[in-house]
Amino acid sequence: MDAEAQLSELNLVLPPAPQPAGFYKPIVVIDQAAYLSGHMPILPDGTMMTGRVGDEVDQQHGYQAARQTGLNMLSTLKNHLGSLHRVDRVVKISGMVFAAPDFDQHPAVINGCSELFAQVFGPDRGVGVRSAAGMVSLPAKISVEIEAVFEIK
Amino acid sequence: MDAEAQLSELNLVLPPAPQPAGFYKPIVVIDQAAYLSGHMPILPDGTMMTGRVGDEVDQQHGYQAARQTGLNMLSTLKNHLGSLHRVDRVVKISGMVFAAPDFDQHPAVINGCSELFAQVFGPDRGVGVRSAAGMVSLPAKISVEIEAVFEIK
Amino acid sequence: MDAEAQLSELNLVLPPAPQPAGFYKPIVVIDQAAYLSGHMPILPDGTMMTGRVGDEVDQQHGYQAARQTGLNMLSTLKNHLGSLHRVDRVVKISGMVFAAPDFDQHPAVINGCSELFAQVFGPDRGVGVRSAAGMVSLPAKISVEIEAVFEIK
Repeated sequence: MDAEAQLSELNLVLPPAPQPAGFYKPIVVIDQAAYLSGHMPILPDGTMMTGRVGDEVDQQHGYQAARQTGLNMLSTLKNHLGSLHRVDRVVKISGMVFAAPDFDQHPAVINGCSELFAQVFGPDRGVGVRSAAGMVSLPAKISVEIEAVFEIK
Repeated sequence: MDAEAQLSELNLVLPPAPQPAGFYKPIVVIDQAAYLSGHMPILPDGTMMTGRVGDEVDQQHGYQAARQTGLNMLSTLKNHLGSLHRVDRVVKISGMVFAAPDFDQHPAVINGCSELFAQVFGPDRGVGVRSAAGMVSLPAKISVEIEAVFEIK
Repeated sequence: MDAEAQLSELNLVLPPAPQPAGFYKPIVVIDQAAYLSGHMPILPDGTMMTGRVGDEVDQQHGYQAARQTGLNMLSTLKNHLGSLHRVDRVVKISGMVFAAPDFDQHPAVINGCSELFAQVFGPDRGVGVRSAAGMVSLPAKISVEIEAVFEIK
């Protein structure tokens, strides 16, 4: 599976890579492991997808926010590594959903990111381990925040 | 400490290994590190231990749910590795408790999993680093979700 | 950047190293990776900095709690490794804020820890990837809990 070709075929346009914001880096590479900061659902115009999933916004909004967060992570990877060809596999994603107390469909929300990675890197190497949980609040009221570990080559 | 012998001695019966559910894998092994997805307190009959700890259910229910989650993690390890003999040590567990806002005994809940691992792998190699925190909501209203990293040999 | 000299220059006095509490260890070292448990804002007299950020306590209290948590992490590193000279870099910190549902300044809170690490280890090696999120409750009602991964040499 050629990740760069998949991006083109899916007509996916990566947003600008998130920049380091003072006291953290978007990505740190140690040997073959690329650690990514908790990423946000930033839209191409710089605005964020916000709102609490389960009451302020619906599950589909959360799914789209998770997909947008995934696009930002791909942009960070490409910006740092030069090409997505250097990504060997998804190791882990941790999905944090800004969620109502009675919301219980967190996996369906985080699938927005997981399905994107499976499309781009394939059904084996694009799928890693995962957790999904509900946060009482998130920075800037974003609907999801996702951190990840990738293996690179 | 012989983990397989300990399982027998403690009369522990592992539940069926959790299966991959579409867009994540229960376990990914990179070199000597086994990453486990956020696992759930699934009972042998397939039902989940649910409810918010601190009001809907009590701390002891949470403790049992954490222990049951640990049994599911052991099942994932054994299913993937062939035997628990290949587990060298617990590196880290991250315990997410579906908790009431005024609950403050998260470590006592996650001990349900930690004590199980100490019993099975011994008081040194069965004990790693840990975090424990309260989630406003969790998938399917489960009482706990736990992810982990093990070192294997 | 000499971390031990920086500690002196900043007049930072490390609190006593947190001790293993039964079923977890403060730190586990695997090859070049030092995993730290979720640490707490313990003050030198043994009391904790508590309270929900955004209503019970303000953002500045959260910031100080994050800084105090960072000092406890440095103490754990020094106690285990003998000297902070053995720390090569911050890889990752995960900041959990005991937060009100409408709080949205989690990064500013976790900066209390991030800025400390940048002061002690320098603006490159002291800065890693990061996540920051709001927890509905935390153990003992502490205002923040932070876990981390460091690379050591």
